[in-house]
Amino acid sequence: MAYQAPVRDIMFNISHLSAWSDVTALEVYSDIGRDDALAALEGLGRFCSEVIAPLSKQGDEIGAHFDGAQVILPEAYHAAYAQFAEMGWQSLPHSVDFGGMGLPQSVGAAATEMVNAADMSFGLCPLLTNGAIEALLLTGSDAQKQTYLEPMISGRWSGTMNLTEPQAGSDLGRVRCKATPVADGTYEVSGTKIFITYGEHSLSENIVHLVLARVPGAPAGPKGLSLFIVPKMLVEDNGALGARNSVTCVSIEHKLGVRASPTAVLEFDGATGVLVGAENHGLEYMFVMMTAARFAVGIQGVAISERAYQIALQYAKDRVQSRPVDGSVSEAVAIIQHPDVRRMLMRMRALTEGGRALAAATAGWMDLGHGAKGDRQREAHDMAEFLVPLVKGFCTEKSLEVTSLAVQVHGGMGFIEETGIAQYYRDARILPIYEGTTAIQANDLIGRKVMRDGGKTARRFSALVAETIVALRNGDEQTHDIASSLEQAREAFDRSLGWILQTTPKDPNAAFAGGVPFLMLTGTLAAGWQLGKSALVAKDKIAQGEDVDFMTQKLTTARFYAQHILVDCQAESRRVVEGSDSLLDAAFPA
Amino acid sequence: MAYQAPVRDIMFNISHLSAWSDVTALEVYSDIGRDDALAALEGLGRFCSEVIAPLSKQGDEIGAHFDGAQVILPEAYHAAYAQFAEMGWQSLPHSVDFGGMGLPQSVGAAATEMVNAADMSFGLCPLLTNGAIEALLLTGSDAQKQTYLEPMISGRWSGTMNLTEPQAGSDLGRVRCKATPVADGTYEVSGTKIFITYGEHSLSENIVHLVLARVPGAPAGPKGLSLFIVPKMLVEDNGALGARNSVTCVSIEHKLGVRASPTAVLEFDGATGVLVGAENHGLEYMFVMMTAARFAVGIQGVAISERAYQIALQYAKDRVQSRPVDGSVSEAVAIIQHPDVRRMLMRMRALTEGGRALAAATAGWMDLGHGAKGDRQREAHDMAEFLVPLVKGFCTEKSLEVTSLAVQVHGGMGFIEETGIAQYYRDARILPIYEGTTAIQANDLIGRKVMRDGGKTARRFSALVAETIVALRNGDEQTHDIASSLEQAREAFDRSLGWILQTTPKDPNAAFAGGVPFLMLTGTLAAGWQLGKSALVAKDKIAQGEDVDFMTQKLTTARFYAQHILVDCQAESRRVVEGSDSLLDAAFPA
Repeated sequence: MAYQAPVRDIMFNISHLSAWSDVTALEVYSDIGRDDALAALEGLGRFCSEVIAPLSKQGDEIGAHFDGAQVILPEAYHAAYAQFAEMGWQSLPHSVDFGGMGLPQSVGAAATEMVNAADMSFGLCPLLTNGAIEALLLTGSDAQKQTYLEPMISGRWSGTMNLTEPQAGSDLGRVRCKATPVADGTYEVSGTKIFITYGEHSLSENIVHLVLARVPGAPAGPKGLSLFIVPKMLVEDNGALGARNSVTCVSIEHKLGVRASPTAVLEFDGATGVLVGAENHGLEYMFVMMTAARFAVGIQGVAISERAYQIALQYAKDRVQSRPVDGSVSEAVAIIQHPDVRRMLMRMRALTEGGRALAAATAGWMDLGHGAKGDRQREAHDMAEFLVPLVKGFCTEKSLEVTSLAVQVHGGMGFIEETGIAQYYRDARILPIYEGTTAIQANDLIGRKVMRDGGKTARRFSALVAETIVALRNGDEQTHDIASSLEQAREAFDRSLGWILQTTPKDPNAAFAGGVPFLMLTGTLAAGWQLGKSALVAKDKIAQGEDVDFMTQKLTTARFYAQHILVDCQAESRRVVEGSDSLLDAAFPA
Repeated sequence: MAYQAPVRDIMFNISHLSAWSDVTALEVYSDIGRDDALAALEGLGRFCSEVIAPLSKQGDEIGAHFDGAQVILPEAYHAAYAQFAEMGWQSLPHSVDFGGMGLPQSVGAAATEMVNAADMSFGLCPLLTNGAIEALLLTGSDAQKQTYLEPMISGRWSGTMNLTEPQAGSDLGRVRCKATPVADGTYEVSGTKIFITYGEHSLSENIVHLVLARVPGAPAGPKGLSLFIVPKMLVEDNGALGARNSVTCVSIEHKLGVRASPTAVLEFDGATGVLVGAENHGLEYMFVMMTAARFAVGIQGVAISERAYQIALQYAKDRVQSRPVDGSVSEAVAIIQHPDVRRMLMRMRALTEGGRALAAATAGWMDLGHGAKGDRQREAHDMAEFLVPLVKGFCTEKSLEVTSLAVQVHGGMGFIEETGIAQYYRDARILPIYEGTTAIQANDLIGRKVMRDGGKTARRFSALVAETIVALRNGDEQTHDIASSLEQAREAFDRSLGWILQTTPKDPNAAFAGGVPFLMLTGTLAAGWQLGKSALVAKDKIAQGEDVDFMTQKLTTARFYAQHILVDCQAESRRVVEGSDSLLDAAFPA
């Protein structure tokens, strides 16, 4: 199925929501111009349309297979991956010091969206590699960076995260995998890891496994985990590949979706590993890396939503069925003319563009948090940390609705696998689960992002929303309506925030019972806020006669979001504030 | 996976929500006692647990196949179907005049739920047969009833509905299938039908296809359709099976779910058919039958929700992961102890029990609409007609959420097909599509159930809800809280209803743009109303010391529904009343 990268919407966000002028004023990004971003994204967009997008359906049909020794991916993945690496797309957001293009996160986020919209099964390989690169950049030694980063950034080597074990999913404190130090300073890593995305394959020359394990005598629980680099092929001092390490694929999973992405069970049998950072600090390092990985998974939610929307939109334009309800035409018309089909398409569009706008804004704060100085750096960092669980939680949960609506637009044809849309409904289902379920995101939001600083960042967020509301109020009737919806949603947030701050210390069960509703409320508001900002830009551009059709649709999307989606915030707030007692009272007899 | 029929909840509804004493006071049901219902449902429940439920996973894995001539179902389906028919379960809700058990719809609805919860792929065969029986009962000639009803009610013959063609899905006016009268009074039926559930198989001795087709010279559009009986095997005058008719299976679909239910493309090539009723009245007859079929599909939504809930509940009790957020235990606990898992389970339970309660109440009105006299009959019939699109729309849409939550409760294991829960997420996806999409239900609700009588039935519905609110207000603090939520939801309904009544004639596009939100608002309110009534019964029983644990949980579910689900009605109302302009303004450029 065809895919067109939404470069115009992406560039709108980069220009207007990602603090582009502040970011490119930073020393680290001082060489980057808007044209560089545009050129990179247009190039990648073409590659995604032409090379990656055609893989998606065959990847789903063929799937990944394990023959007892090797993982076999669809044949076409090999040429596509080689070309992806050769063109340098893996390197897009990474430091020029290790051969990267050095583009900011806002551009990197857009790139992640495009690749995953084209084919999420394919996109998971570079996505995991990006996570491993990030982890090594932040926590690896100079020697480790020297050895691993260039080949990973070039795409010659890929990366994985080895966290989960059968008894240790959300609860990483239960990890049992062992790492025993040996004389040469390395460790022998032993144990079984499950759900390892791209844990085994032959697209890349080597696979760099980042593995959580326990050294002898480590404390029980999460504070006894250490992080190790365990490469599939041992790496010699000069960087050349040596013998095969003692890590083997035992099986791969038969999954509901992303079927061409191999999800491996890996057996480490005294495999040689090198320690990253200090012993027993592995979970800390993982948390650093998780921010990037969770952000990327949130973007996968936007990506699959965009792809599903494009397919449903095309179907709605092509499929002729029934006369219009207003009797204006006596013949059957394309279903896009029917009000409910328009409603479904607009919900899909508003949720997708809302999620994209939220991710773009978050990326801007990430960039400032990375490159700015002093208070500005700290505030940006804190805001990015506050927004990341929203990007992950909101964009992935909403991707379930968007892909479901895409099936619905297709009617009976949507349920037939050959039609192709059902795949996205299946693929999306993993997104609110991996890299921390939605409940884990909610715990992170409440525990680490709201309570830890006593609500300071959350209140700053609300104050920033209020600034946008004031600006919208100063506009015309249309922006004024958006302001009203946004203000009601912000009040719902403030009320819930106050309750969370008060309740968490004295009744944590009640507070966390409202965790996911609070996350969804905050995500809905945050995306609506960014679309409110977009509406202001669009109004301005329309007044200047610039790109009027696009800007008019941007404004319409923001209005729809305010009328149809922001209005859910009040109910979410009631679920938070009034909803815990019946839930905690419940018994569950057999 | 195990399945326990929820007989206690079902009997609660039959006793307290289905107007049981009024129904059994009717002449047609005067022989039926509560014990008869209980005995039948306990028997069927055991059969579902022991014989049908084990089919579900293998049915999904094996699927239905077509070898170019025959449809091959999983081997175990044959013995199970034979036993199902032999035990008389097909006959449960059908007239004793043709060999049925003659139980009322409220019991029939419960039976449909159980069979479809056990295995929806299996359940579709009796479900379609029930629809065909209903159609023949209401519209067939005496001779046709004599020939067809007994073998169908006994389960020896099954039935199908042949409506859809490639160009005619929701828009049946586009049906092209032709029927040419021949000298002996029969017709030669020719054309292609698609999406024919159980269109070909060998579980039953014969398949009775009910087919929409056009006679020569028939008016174009929906008013030129006639209904025909086209049996797979011709039926001789004495009822014996004759030669094979000219209807052949061309292929079956490869579907997202219900994979053991064969969805056939049927080719009619001058097949012998007999006219049902009068020429050109086929769509009218189909509408009569559709009410029953749509109601049954709504119940499939409840059924699959119940099954998914039971599996998720068991998993949540078994899976140990993470310490409690309140720090009360220092070890990891069963995840059912975590507030968000409880929230998910309670959402599932409340939506499932709410849908079941709504269906039970609707069944009660159907029974009164069938057997009562005068105004009472007419009012009951109208109320049932008003509620059926809600049962279909609300229960099936919510089954998507419930089955999705069931996957979420399983975490990463939920995405692995072998775990078994993903199947229900896939299976459920057809429910808001077939037998009229949710938008078609909304059109039916607005066009035929609200506008046609100028809102009279809708206002009566609201007045009945108000009576329950008054009763809840007279209770204690807990029922008072339910009353408050219900009252706010009722106000949201009244406001939306007023707007729909006013807007539909002058701006149908705006009105139908709010159709699905109006349907969901009304369905949410209707189910909440029935749970409100349930809370009153439960309070009363608790005071009497009767079945206290069950009644306490019933009350808790009603409280949860009021706090977490009824609160969505305000947002739905805003989508109806304020949401059309951005949607109708939208343009969809390429």
